[in-house]
Amino acid sequence: MNIELICTGEEVLSGQITDTNATWLANQLQDVGLEFSRKTTVGDRMDDLVEVFNHRSQQADVILVNGGLGPTDDDLSAQAMAKAMGVELELNQEWYDKLSAWWAARGRPMTDNNRKQTMLPSGAVMIDNPVGTACGFRVKHNRAWLIFTPGVPHELKRMMLDHILPFITSINQRQSQVQVKKWMTFGVGESQLASLLESLKLAPGCTLGFRASAPQMEVKLIARDIADQALYQAQCDTIKSLIGDALVGEDYPTIAECLHHQLLDSELKIAAAESCTGGQLASQLVEFPGSSAYLQTSLVTYSNQAKQTLLGVPASTLEHHGAVSLQTAEAMAEGARAVLDCDFGVSVTGVAGPDGGSEDKPVGTVCFGLASREGVVSQRIQFGSRSRSWIRKMSCAVAYDMLRRAMLGQNPIADYPMLTRHS
Amino acid sequence: MNIELICTGEEVLSGQITDTNATWLANQLQDVGLEFSRKTTVGDRMDDLVEVFNHRSQQADVILVNGGLGPTDDDLSAQAMAKAMGVELELNQEWYDKLSAWWAARGRPMTDNNRKQTMLPSGAVMIDNPVGTACGFRVKHNRAWLIFTPGVPHELKRMMLDHILPFITSINQRQSQVQVKKWMTFGVGESQLASLLESLKLAPGCTLGFRASAPQMEVKLIARDIADQALYQAQCDTIKSLIGDALVGEDYPTIAECLHHQLLDSELKIAAAESCTGGQLASQLVEFPGSSAYLQTSLVTYSNQAKQTLLGVPASTLEHHGAVSLQTAEAMAEGARAVLDCDFGVSVTGVAGPDGGSEDKPVGTVCFGLASREGVVSQRIQFGSRSRSWIRKMSCAVAYDMLRRAMLGQNPIADYPMLTRHS
Repeated sequence: MNIELICTGEEVLSGQITDTNATWLANQLQDVGLEFSRKTTVGDRMDDLVEVFNHRSQQADVILVNGGLGPTDDDLSAQAMAKAMGVELELNQEWYDKLSAWWAARGRPMTDNNRKQTMLPSGAVMIDNPVGTACGFRVKHNRAWLIFTPGVPHELKRMMLDHILPFITSINQRQSQVQVKKWMTFGVGESQLASLLESLKLAPGCTLGFRASAPQMEVKLIARDIADQALYQAQCDTIKSLIGDALVGEDYPTIAECLHHQLLDSELKIAAAESCTGGQLASQLVEFPGSSAYLQTSLVTYSNQAKQTLLGVPASTLEHHGAVSLQTAEAMAEGARAVLDCDFGVSVTGVAGPDGGSEDKPVGTVCFGLASREGVVSQRIQFGSRSRSWIRKMSCAVAYDMLRRAMLGQNPIADYPMLTRHS
Repeated sequence: MNIELICTGEEVLSGQITDTNATWLANQLQDVGLEFSRKTTVGDRMDDLVEVFNHRSQQADVILVNGGLGPTDDDLSAQAMAKAMGVELELNQEWYDKLSAWWAARGRPMTDNNRKQTMLPSGAVMIDNPVGTACGFRVKHNRAWLIFTPGVPHELKRMMLDHILPFITSINQRQSQVQVKKWMTFGVGESQLASLLESLKLAPGCTLGFRASAPQMEVKLIARDIADQALYQAQCDTIKSLIGDALVGEDYPTIAECLHHQLLDSELKIAAAESCTGGQLASQLVEFPGSSAYLQTSLVTYSNQAKQTLLGVPASTLEHHGAVSLQTAEAMAEGARAVLDCDFGVSVTGVAGPDGGSEDKPVGTVCFGLASREGVVSQRIQFGSRSRSWIRKMSCAVAYDMLRRAMLGQNPIADYPMLTRHS
């Protein structure tokens, strides 16, 4: 099956936004054994849209169209598709009723702009959007099904998972059985992982892929039409053992989510003290429902005064060793643990840059502490002078990994091939 | 001038990497008043490449081709271009000599793979690559100049800046001067903004655009070849006044960054108490260097115990009104402000879902408090049962907007057309 993607919108074309929808969609397709054969991005111009719909629908079986379903005049996708097919736009009563009810519930009349979003090319099949005002739709034109989706990422994702992926797989003639297995790793680079896995002889139909998505790196085994399931399983086991210590989890896409589930299962209580991560460590866990079961508090103590008043870090420690030091990290972790008597207290204090570095503690120097009822450990990692955002993201991941290892009864301080530790 | 981009490579198409080259190139063009009219991404398949070169060269004046110049078998760009033109590949002596010298300097013979990189379509003009083994080249085919560039970002960038941008501007007959002005808004939807601006008569050459990027919405005026700068400026002023109260800032892309700069300029100190935002409110500010000047602390107080112990919220308040209430939000804001004696304390406590809602306080109910030395105000907003991530993101934005308004001497509690308030 030949699947293409058409992205619309001046913002993508003019480089104001990078097209992450395209990346996400490609990954979804890959998980069911499909891939885009072409991707076209066009601006919000009627002639261009009509031309690309007509031209590509002669080649492809399925075309996902993303964007251009909004309420304003520069949203032309439905109108352009009608023009390409030589049909009129007509009101979709089902979507009209739904939008009217939505506005009525808010005590306001529907705007003309929203009414525009109920007009679909004649003959189109409406696709529900439970989280936005733009419905999707699909039409058959030339040899292709063209499937229209909103550009807003969470609306697109919902529609893709609920309706479009099931539809595509239902019309896919040459079904191959695809199994995708993913392993999440931390602290190793792509080339290092590739070396670890070099000795592996892949079974027929299997492809190995890597996807860097800082802070984690994903290893993915895509298997098509596997006859021998035992062989496939053995291969998965081999990969897992070759990855070894760097393996953070198997079933969740981020290290934060892996830790969240590990904590949920543990009945342990944790607290955090954050300086350069500034709340990000806690926030990424709070993103998952149920995190209140284990996360008691996080204290964002950016200033020295906050570290003293809220965490009880001694003034002398800050004075002699500085805010970014093993000693301060340990006192912060102990203070965070003690304030609500948690099982673990974890701390992060570092120089995220771009300013504030010194010869002794250059930008990218981050100290971590982990306190339990038994004691406290700490480490200092030098991330190098990368961006502030990258240093903060990686710092959260190191703190999570310390907790993960401690919960497994391992040494919380690990040797990461891609990171430099001074402790 | 009609400029298009063709990206080649399975990695981009399969979503293994997001195409940041395209974003970078589009931004370079925009700086000289040009823009891509189309972007096509194809895999490393000969037929696809030949088809796209032939088809697009009938429409475009200039086509940038990125990728496929590497030494391996799946790098097909030069060969495909020769096939599309019906010519042979021939050795480019200048590049051959340069590569030979490069290898000789390293005491090694040139590999066969690298020799492949010296073969260009007959008649092509070679483009030097001072930082890699793949030279670029350009050919004229149908109405277009096709310009071939390597996929490696730093090689592409060097070639683009040294050779290609000067070439494109030299052949651009109709130079246009482009001005882009952006306004950041909060609390109004795209259709509501469009209604606000409906009365506007755009000057010739001007286009108005909207870009939704929750929590904020951007309004953008793109002006080409403006003869009357005074008229243009007057139009910008009109837009600004039509947006009115919803305008959060003009120069920064997010509400968090607008607030960051406002706080930096203010010399005020703030503290936060976060329940459902769980550190995100602080973290988004800490992302900007210099935030330590104003952000003294944020207390992530997810549990009732944390609210009592760390913020001094009375047990009776939690018992009588619940954790998600105006009373608790006010006590949290006051507690956060007092702990390090800041100018402002801001608090967020809500039901981010998907569980935890009740009839009285359904998912999406969030209470906000803002304490100053003069007193405390609060409001309750009902975001509706959207995703947990969306509710948390919007909650941060409402808290920022309360601070923004308070600093401007306005009422921190505003009527947002797209949000429902119960206070």
